[in-house]
Parts: sequence; structure tokens; C-alpha cells
Amino acid sequence: MNRIKTAIVGASGYSGMELLRLLLGHPGVELVAVTSRQEAGRALGEVFPRFCKAPGAELTFIEPDPDAIAATGAQAAFLALPHGVAAEIARALLERGLKVLDLSADFRLGDPAVYEEFYGHPHPAPDLLEGAVYGLPEVRAEEIKAANLIASPGCYPTSILLPLLPLLRGKLIDAETIVANSMSGVSGAGRKPDLSLLFCECNESARAYGVPKHRHLSEIEQELSIAAGEKVVVSFIPHLIPVNAGIATTTTAKLLDGIAPEAIGEALEEAYAGKPFVRLLGKGGCADTKNVTRTNFIDIGWQYDPRTRRVILMSAEDNIGKGAGGQAVQSFNLMFGLSETDGLQNF
Amino acid sequence: MNRIKTAIVGASGYSGMELLRLLLGHPGVELVAVTSRQEAGRALGEVFPRFCKAPGAELTFIEPDPDAIAATGAQAAFLALPHGVAAEIARALLERGLKVLDLSADFRLGDPAVYEEFYGHPHPAPDLLEGAVYGLPEVRAEEIKAANLIASPGCYPTSILLPLLPLLRGKLIDAETIVANSMSGVSGAGRKPDLSLLFCECNESARAYGVPKHRHLSEIEQELSIAAGEKVVVSFIPHLIPVNAGIATTTTAKLLDGIAPEAIGEALEEAYAGKPFVRLLGKGGCADTKNVTRTNFIDIGWQYDPRTRRVILMSAEDNIGKGAGGQAVQSFNLMFGLSETDGLQNF
Amino acid sequence: MNRIKTAIVGASGYSGMELLRLLLGHPGVELVAVTSRQEAGRALGEVFPRFCKAPGAELTFIEPDPDAIAATGAQAAFLALPHGVAAEIARALLERGLKVLDLSADFRLGDPAVYEEFYGHPHPAPDLLEGAVYGLPEVRAEEIKAANLIASPGCYPTSILLPLLPLLRGKLIDAETIVANSMSGVSGAGRKPDLSLLFCECNESARAYGVPKHRHLSEIEQELSIAAGEKVVVSFIPHLIPVNAGIATTTTAKLLDGIAPEAIGEALEEAYAGKPFVRLLGKGGCADTKNVTRTNFIDIGWQYDPRTRRVILMSAEDNIGKGAGGQAVQSFNLMFGLSETDGLQNF
Amino acid sequence: MNRIKTAIVGASGYSGMELLRLLLGHPGVELVAVTSRQEAGRALGEVFPRFCKAPGAELTFIEPDPDAIAATGAQAAFLALPHGVAAEIARALLERGLKVLDLSADFRLGDPAVYEEFYGHPHPAPDLLEGAVYGLPEVRAEEIKAANLIASPGCYPTSILLPLLPLLRGKLIDAETIVANSMSGVSGAGRKPDLSLLFCECNESARAYGVPKHRHLSEIEQELSIAAGEKVVVSFIPHLIPVNAGIATTTTAKLLDGIAPEAIGEALEEAYAGKPFVRLLGKGGCADTKNVTRTNFIDIGWQYDPRTRRVILMSAEDNIGKGAGGQAVQSFNLMFGLSETDGLQNF
Repeated sequence: MNRIKTAIVGASGYSGMELLRLLLGHPGVELVAVTSRQEAGRALGEVFPRFCKAPGAELTFIEPDPDAIAATGAQAAFLALPHGVAAEIARALLERGLKVLDLSADFRLGDPAVYEEFYGHPHPAPDLLEGAVYGLPEVRAEEIKAANLIASPGCYPTSILLPLLPLLRGKLIDAETIVANSMSGVSGAGRKPDLSLLFCECNESARAYGVPKHRHLSEIEQELSIAAGEKVVVSFIPHLIPVNAGIATTTTAKLLDGIAPEAIGEALEEAYAGKPFVRLLGKGGCADTKNVTRTNFIDIGWQYDPRTRRVILMSAEDNIGKGAGGQAVQSFNLMFGLSETDGLQNF
Repeated sequence: MNRIKTAIVGASGYSGMELLRLLLGHPGVELVAVTSRQEAGRALGEVFPRFCKAPGAELTFIEPDPDAIAATGAQAAFLALPHGVAAEIARALLERGLKVLDLSADFRLGDPAVYEEFYGHPHPAPDLLEGAVYGLPEVRAEEIKAANLIASPGCYPTSILLPLLPLLRGKLIDAETIVANSMSGVSGAGRKPDLSLLFCECNESARAYGVPKHRHLSEIEQELSIAAGEKVVVSFIPHLIPVNAGIATTTTAKLLDGIAPEAIGEALEEAYAGKPFVRLLGKGGCADTKNVTRTNFIDIGWQYDPRTRRVILMSAEDNIGKGAGGQAVQSFNLMFGLSETDGLQNF
Repeated sequence: MNRIKTAIVGASGYSGMELLRLLLGHPGVELVAVTSRQEAGRALGEVFPRFCKAPGAELTFIEPDPDAIAATGAQAAFLALPHGVAAEIARALLERGLKVLDLSADFRLGDPAVYEEFYGHPHPAPDLLEGAVYGLPEVRAEEIKAANLIASPGCYPTSILLPLLPLLRGKLIDAETIVANSMSGVSGAGRKPDLSLLFCECNESARAYGVPKHRHLSEIEQELSIAAGEKVVVSFIPHLIPVNAGIATTTTAKLLDGIAPEAIGEALEEAYAGKPFVRLLGKGGCADTKNVTRTNFIDIGWQYDPRTRRVILMSAEDNIGKGAGGQAVQSFNLMFGLSETDGLQNF
Repeated sequence: MNRIKTAIVGASGYSGMELLRLLLGHPGVELVAVTSRQEAGRALGEVFPRFCKAPGAELTFIEPDPDAIAATGAQAAFLALPHGVAAEIARALLERGLKVLDLSADFRLGDPAVYEEFYGHPHPAPDLLEGAVYGLPEVRAEEIKAANLIASPGCYPTSILLPLLPLLRGKLIDAETIVANSMSGVSGAGRKPDLSLLFCECNESARAYGVPKHRHLSEIEQELSIAAGEKVVVSFIPHLIPVNAGIATTTTAKLLDGIAPEAIGEALEEAYAGKPFVRLLGKGGCADTKNVTRTNFIDIGWQYDPRTRRVILMSAEDNIGKGAGGQAVQSFNLMFGLSETDGLQNF
């Protein structure tokens, strides 16, 4: 089999590191370029000692120059860059014939006005939005297969959307009552020298942040609205907890009148039967992040409280796995006609 | 000043350990007895090396025998025992003239039928319920001063009730829409040799549990209903996170029509002005457990989301401090006419 | 390729769990049996939810019965059992024609008297010792290839022996001055409901234990003595630190008179050139456990202090990886003529 | 009692925070000034929300200006500043009549040449060295009482010196064989935005650093040499482990010929009988940091290995408590004629 020549643009953060981990071990991938402005010139194994004897890890970081990337023969590029920065290089790489998997927010929102509302600056490439596919493989496998530009979903949205979408599609819950509380590991905040991310500031600490309008709300509501067939507005409260990786999300919503609680389990089963990376824990199943870290799985359990008529959805994923790098690789597999699970069968 | 002779019954768990820490340093307390069935005969400093040179820590654990406790001259006893067990010894100590501060659930619920529903066995001492005071000092200071039997609130309820009560009393929020999500440190699960509480099972893990009907719901709804003047039923989802101590709670509810968001802040200010252990963080304040661990403080911030009309209440406390031992000491101070903050001025 | 039918005996602890993780992903292995006295009858994915959708994980735990294991067609068995228990089942499986990789201490010591001294009971199968090979693949690859019974080394010994052996063989250091200090993750203490292993007892804690004569000293000194050509006695102090996995070991010893410090680096390079799982960090390299967790690597750095003439060896490995399950799989690969790195190329 | 007006200069790091915690609760202290270049103008409770309702915490950070500090009437100043910076302000405050407790390294070494060797620049105030006292209260109580300038010891040195000094004074061990391995919590590395101190870089990590010549070696060897009556050179290897606070140190040395092992315990007992902050755990006692965090205690246990004739000393302290802020407060108590334990009786 010819391995697909692949580049990682912006490989010095935690999502980049996870992409490295996955792509170095991917049987269908040949890693041909890794870029990082601040690490350019350093060997991959020097920046990330974990990878220093991995086959294929003899690369040296280069500057994120589109021509240099294209010159490596790369057919695909993963972008793990800040929003606003990703769009420009995405365009340049698309123009040079690469397929692009963008992990930033730049292509997730169909409406540039929503982007500006949530990200505080005009959209950097509105003309590219139409060609971009929001890369939730459990929902849009066919579109992903045909796409050249994937907007890989955010970590929080993935953990909220996968449990909720089938329930909204099935008209089982009252969209007005949706409240999602998420707890994220610190890697979600990025690999940057910030006082608030120091070990001693995060260890033995738990706190909400980003309320009431975290940026991820924009894509959450976009996708929920599509599924519901009407505008959906929800509450989302993210929290930081002292783990390296993992997101646990608990979402509650009222069951609509006349719906039997069992319909919840049935809708989830129907939506995710045969999906390799969704593990349904059934009624009463309490998802635990420790079972999904470093995998591409999302575990989903649910419960029903007849006293309040609320459904409780409990999901767990790895924020840099299924919530970032793993999910992007899953889309990549679909784009290139590989098996969906290639390179993602780690436990 | 004569120091009050005090006993701790059931001092070998984490709440007992916190009571020890607080009472050994309390200027108005002479610790005269510590009991533990399994540690009887061992020196306090042997069981808890942390305390082995503390003045007053020369005690040896004794069996929880009411006569032996009374014989020490104890005027007050803190009970840190399992529910069901506490009631019996509480009665025996009350009969011997001691004031009792019970940290278990045995006297928290006014209605023995609710106790049986949530705890799975008939109430062990229904005749004592009328004399028991639910010991939230910010709410019932006068009753606590006059009481001989305090039912000290649970850790989760404290973190949920203090933010919510003023809003329900003031008819500011829709009680039907209340959803509380809490994250607790592992000490809340007790000091017992259970596989699920091992370091390697809890570290790098986050998970919901006890849904949909955690036992603490019973006292939460009792107190919320009193404040609202009508029956209140809520959703409460506890989570376990890898910290030793601390609870962060995020509670959401819809603002009632016609209420201005500022009323939230005003109600909190009015309720807690001058209360020494409530720190209001104001609008946008995100409470962090790391600021309250090993103190008796509860930090409360709030936010309002005009898109959903939901109020977001964020509170943080130490689950074995304000959520258990500290709060009981606060009630003790009131009962014995001491300053409310005596022995609780640690930072 | 025919995959080798393989059993894991005693698969419910942390080493068993790591063996499961590795063997489920091993391209040359078909897992045919997993045993556990306490989990017999339960599905593998129920006991370890992490593995519940792994291909090959449809197994159910069975009792550790040799006939039942042999009946599955197993050609090899990994034993992750307590010392004293492993010997008996090893014998039974060897008699049934299986190759055995024992992770316990039962076959590590050539001299049954030393076993009795350190383990407190007579050796359970002294007649099998002659056929057993101490399974350090970097040292005894040829013997491992020919063996039917592998005594896979302990976690601490691996981290101490690999840096020291070349220096003793080369007569570079004074064996009398060797002092090894190790820090281990809590998984090394096993998966058992013990109060001292609770999250709240281990988190925010660091402590020495097992001094002065930890059981692993016996195999450490056996192997060092072989390398030195004379009886070597050393100091070894293990410590428990709050990480799930990983051992960091710092070993000091005096350079012999007349030896140049550079000889240290040369000896390490010579010993481990081409060895796939030893990563030499060179002079000044400080090994960090976070670079080796969940891999089969051991990282080794060294430094020299001219003021004291002491060499400082710093090594890091995963205690349940290279220190247990990974190393056993490495031996297995050699025994069955596979590539040494098969199934161990995870990062 | 008149409380002593006290300033903390450089109060925005972890040692400064610990000094704040201790001095805010100290019955004999009135905190009159807290300085920080980067936090000047901000309220103390804003920078450290933990303290925001503490009595006496209504202060605002000011610039570290000696005149401004003196103008507050401060009689004493604690300096928690980087080495090199502390000396200048110490001089200015001494000239203004304040007693100074310096937590930096600037006045710890009697010989300015050693300072230059280890700190890489000429000593900033060699004329002040003669008047400075190395503030180990268990060793130099009388000198501390008479001093105006205290050089409070480093965190590692405290944990190494207290166990070793009595053994060297008593000529019990061979100074040439001393090897000290320490594990420190991350607060020891300071409160600065450094990539290597991020939560995700320190959690699930253990590593040696600073070998072979950590700066603290200079004061360790100075004090050991004084005790031994001859030049002592030792090996010291510090490690970083994922806890907020705490140092566990294991020190080994050979017992001198003709010395009975029991002499170790006797020497420790004799040296520390009646010392309020040294807790001797006796033979076999393995000190655990979790018993000393947030206290001024140092726990010391020991063991003897007849096979190697090595003594093993195990000590545990809080690196920012007894290893920094607590110890400085202990010296302060002695300087001002207070009880040695005032303000340090927290558990």
C-alpha cells in the first residue's frame, strides 16, 4: 500500500502532539513535514522526547511555509493552529492541491457573522466556508469522504453533540431545557506559558470558566439547530479539573410529553449501531474519562429521572483524542478511503 | 476562659480528621475523647501522624461508649458516623446531657418517610427529629443557638443551598428549572478500603455517579421547598474528580419573567452581608476550590445569560470543611455562645 | 501469519491490564484465554471498560485451571500472579507444552535459599529454576529465544540494572558505593483494596518504604554480581509518589581510580547501540517518566561530579510497561521468532 | 500585647503566599506592608483570593521601596525575593532600623567566593555577611535571638541538614559517603510562567534535575563542614514530583567502624529533644510529606542496613513551610522574644 504523505502544521501544542502520536503509528501514513514557528530547526524528538525513537520521527520542524510543505509531496495537512491563523494557510495548501483537516474553529461555522460574534474579528476566508465540512464522522461520513476541507469539531462540542443529536432529531427532548456541564483536562487550555496553567494553580483545583458564552457554543448551537430543524439555544458551562486529558460532560434536558424514557436508549442505539468509536453504556451507565483517554472512543451513558422528567446524558472522551486529533484522523481515514479505524486502534 | 470539653465520636474518617484538625486548634475547646471502633486503643498521633505533636493530641482512641464519653466530662459531642448508626448514640449522649452535633444524615430530614425513601430503612429515632435543627448557620443561627441537637448539612447540599436559597426566597428564579452539577474531591467518598477509591482508579478520571437520585437530594429539596414556600424538585448530578478535597457546584435556573438580572446579586448581598464565611465573588466570579480548601469559606459567584435567561451560580467550598467539619464547628460556636469564627480563622 | 494463541493468567491487576492492552493490539497474537479467580465469569470489557470494543476482547474471564487454559490451544501463557502462586501453575502449563512468561518473582533467583531469605517461605519449585531465564532482553536475548520459562524482571530491578550492568562489566565503578533511589507510581503497589493506596492517602504524598531490604534487592544483587564477577551488595530505597505509572531511578556510585568519566557514556553506548527500547540521553540527560509511560522504553541519562567522583545514573521507565508487561512481551517476541518490537510500537 | 509591625517584601510567589498565610494568622504580628513589583496597586485579596476575607488582609500591594516600607512603621521585614535582588533591599531596610529575614540565598554563605562560584555573579553585599545568621532555629537559636539579619535556609538544605548534623557532630558516619536524594513539590520551582512548570508537563511526571551541582549544595556543604569540623563534600540529587508542596529526602551514609547503629537514634533524640518542630519517627520510621504539608514540622525517621553498613535517613517537610516561610517565622519568633511556636500551631 502506498502510504499517504502527510504534514502537521502547528505541531508543538498538545493537539499537535496527539496528531504526531497517532500519525507516527498510522499504517497508512507517511509523515513528511511537521511545522512550528517557534520550534523550526529543532528535531521532532528533541521537542517531544517521547517520540525520539519512533520510526518516522527523524523529521525536523520547519516553518509553516505552504510551498515548503507542498514541496514534500504532502497530499494532506492537519492544521493545529490558533483560529484566525489557520484559514490563511488552509487556503494556500488547498490551492496547492492538498486536502486539509483543520482543527481550529475557522471553518466550523457556516455563517461568518456568527464567527465574528463569537471570535471577535471578521472571518478570514468566508469564501471557503461553503466547501468546508464539519467533521463529525458519525454524522457526516459521506460529506467527509467527498471533502477537501474538514473543519474538525471542538472538544466540548463533540462530547455534547454526539449524545444530543439523535434525541433532537427524534424530537424526544425539549431543546429549550438543554443544559450542558463539561469538565475538561488542562491540555484543553493549550501548551502556553500562562500563570493560570501552572501545576500549582491547577492541581487541587476545580473551577468553572468562560461563562456564559464560551466560543464553542457557536458550533454546538449550529449543529443542534440543524438536528432540531429549528434554532436551538442552550446553556453550556465548561470547567477545568486537574487531569491531563479527558472531558466528562453531563447534559440534561426534559423529555417531551408523551415520550417514553426508553426512546432515549433506542435513539442512541439506532444512531450509533455499528459506529466503531461510540460506546453506548446504556441506561445508568456513568461514563468515566479514564476509560477513553488516549483513544478515539466516546462513551455515552444515560439516565432518566421521572421526578423531574429530565434525561441525563453522561459522555466521556479524550479532549485531544476524539475531541481533537483522533477525530481528525478518523475524518482523514474517510477522505482517503482507508478503514475508519486505521491508526486508531490503540487502547 | 473555660474551654468546652468536647468529644469526637467516629474520628477515624476524613470528616473526623478535619474535626480533629479544627478542634485541636480551637481556643475554646478542650478535646477530651475521640472514639473509633476500629482504632480503639491506638494513640491519636499514631492513627493520624499529622497530629502527633499537637497540644491536646495525647489522647487514645476509645470505643464509642456513651457512658465512657460522658465520664470524660464532655459537654459536646461531634458525631462523624454512618447514617443509621449516629441516631442511637446521639440519643444516648443527649440523655447524658451533652449537646450533639451530628454530621450524618440521621436528623437532617423532618419527615421520617422521606428518610426511609432515600436511605432505605426506617428512621432510627423519629421522636428526636422535632428537636433537631438543620445546621446551616447562615440561615438558622438563632435556632442553632438554642438547640441541643444539630443535624449538620451534607457537603453537596451546603454548596447548592447557600447560593439558591436567597433566590427562591426572593421569587427570582423558576424552581422547576433548577439543575445542579457538582464536582467533589475523593475524600467525600470516605476513608474505606474500596477498589474504586484507589489512587490509580481516581487519578486521571472524572465521572458522574449516583444519578438520578443521590441521597443528598432529600435534604436539598427539603430546604429549597421551605425557602420557596412550595414543593421544589430539582436535578442534581454529583461527579468525582481527582482532588483530595473541595466541591465546585454549578447551578442553573431560569430567571422569572419580569425580574432584572441584577436582582440576583442584590439578593445574595442582602442574604450574606456580614456573614463571615460567605464570600461573594459578584457577577462573573468563577469560584475555584483551591481558594477555599482547608477553610470554612464558601465562595459564590454568578452570571446571567440573556440568550437563555438562565442564571448560573458557581460555588466552591471544602467538602470536609464548610461541607462537614468546619460548618459543624461554626454551629458549635453558636451553641456555646462563642464567636462564630473561633477556631475557623485558618487560611 | 498464524497468530500465536496466548493466555493471560491473573489478568485483573495492573500488570494484567497492561498485558491485555499490549496483547490485544499485538499483530502476532490471538488472545485465547484470560483468567482471574475473582472475576471468573465476567466479560473482559465489563471488568476493564477501556477494552470493551477492542477486537479480540470478547473473552470472558475463566478460572486459572491449567487444563482449561491448555484446551484453548494456547501456546504461551503470561502469568501475572502473586509470588508463591505462580510457580505451581507455571509447572502445570509447562507440562502441557506451553511456553511460560512469569511476571512474579518465583523464577528470578537462581538460588532457592535467597528466595526463602527474601520471600519468607521455601521456594515452591526449585527444580524448575535451572530452566528459567531472567528475562532482560537487552542482556540475555539468546537465552530467551531458547527458553520455555521466562522469569520477567521486577520493575525496580529493570530501572537499576540496565544503567548499571555495563558499568560493572566494564569495571568502571566501585560496586561498594552503589546507592539506588527509586520513585514509583502507585500502580506498582497493585490493584487491591488497601487503605494506604486510597487516592487521598497517596495524592499530595511522597514517602520511602520497604527499607532497608526490599524484596527486589535479591534479584538486583544477583544480576549485579554476575556482571561484576563478584558478590555485590547495594543500597536500594524505593519511594511511592502520586503518579499512576512510571519509575524514576537515580543511582550513584564512585568512578574507579584511573577511569575517565567519558568511559561511562561509551560503555552505555556500546551496550545499547541498536537496542530498540533503550534510549540513551547522554551526559546531563535527566530522564523523565512522562516520556516513557505506556511505552516499552527505558530512558537513561548520566552525569559525573568531579567533586565527589560520583557517577549519577538517571533512568525512567513505565513500571507496568518496560518494568512488567512490555518487557514480558518483548521476551515473548524473541521466544517466538517475531520482531522484538512487534506490538510494542506505541507512543 | 503590642503586635509587631511586619512587612513582606516580594509577596507574590509561593513563599510569599505562605508567609502571608502564616503572618495573617500570627497573634503577635500586624501586617503593615506587602510589596510586589508586578502586583503593586492591586489588593491582596485580589491577587490571592484565598485571603480575601482574612482579618488584616485589607492591604494593597506596594512597590518594594525601602522608605515606603519604613514609613509603615514596620519593625521587621521578610524578603521573598530572587537572590541578587534581596541583598540591596536588605541593606536599605537594615539601615532604616528593621530586622530582616531573608529567604533568598544572598546571606546564607559565609564566603563570598563560594557564592560567586554557585550563583554566577559577585556577592552583592559581602560586608553584610558577617552580621548574618544562617537561620536554622534548631541549631542556632541563640544567635538568631541576637541577630538583625537572618539568612533563612533553603528548602532542600533544611531537609538534609537537620537529620545529618547530629550524626556528623557525633562522628557517627563517614562524611565521604553521604548521598542525598530529594523529591520536591512543584511550588519549589516558583510561581512563574514557564512551559516546564505547566500542569500537563509536571503531572504524571518524575524527573531529576540540577545535577550534579545544584545551588543548594553550597549551603549544605557549608553547614555539614561546620558540624564535621572538616571540609565535607556530598552528592545531592533533587527531583521534581507532581505534588504542590512537600519535600521528601532520603540520605544515606556509611556508619563509621566501631559505632553501634543505636547511636543514630540516640544522637537524633539528644539533638532534638524538646524541639517543637522536629518529630522523630524512630528506627524504621518512613517520613511522609502528607503529614507535614502546611505545617512547620520536619519528620525524621531512620533505618540501618547491616549488609551495607549504611544509615538511611528519611525526612519530610513542607518546602514552603519548614523549608521557607514557616522556618523564617520561627526565627522571627526567636528574634522578637515570642514563643517559638507562635503562629505556627496549624495542623
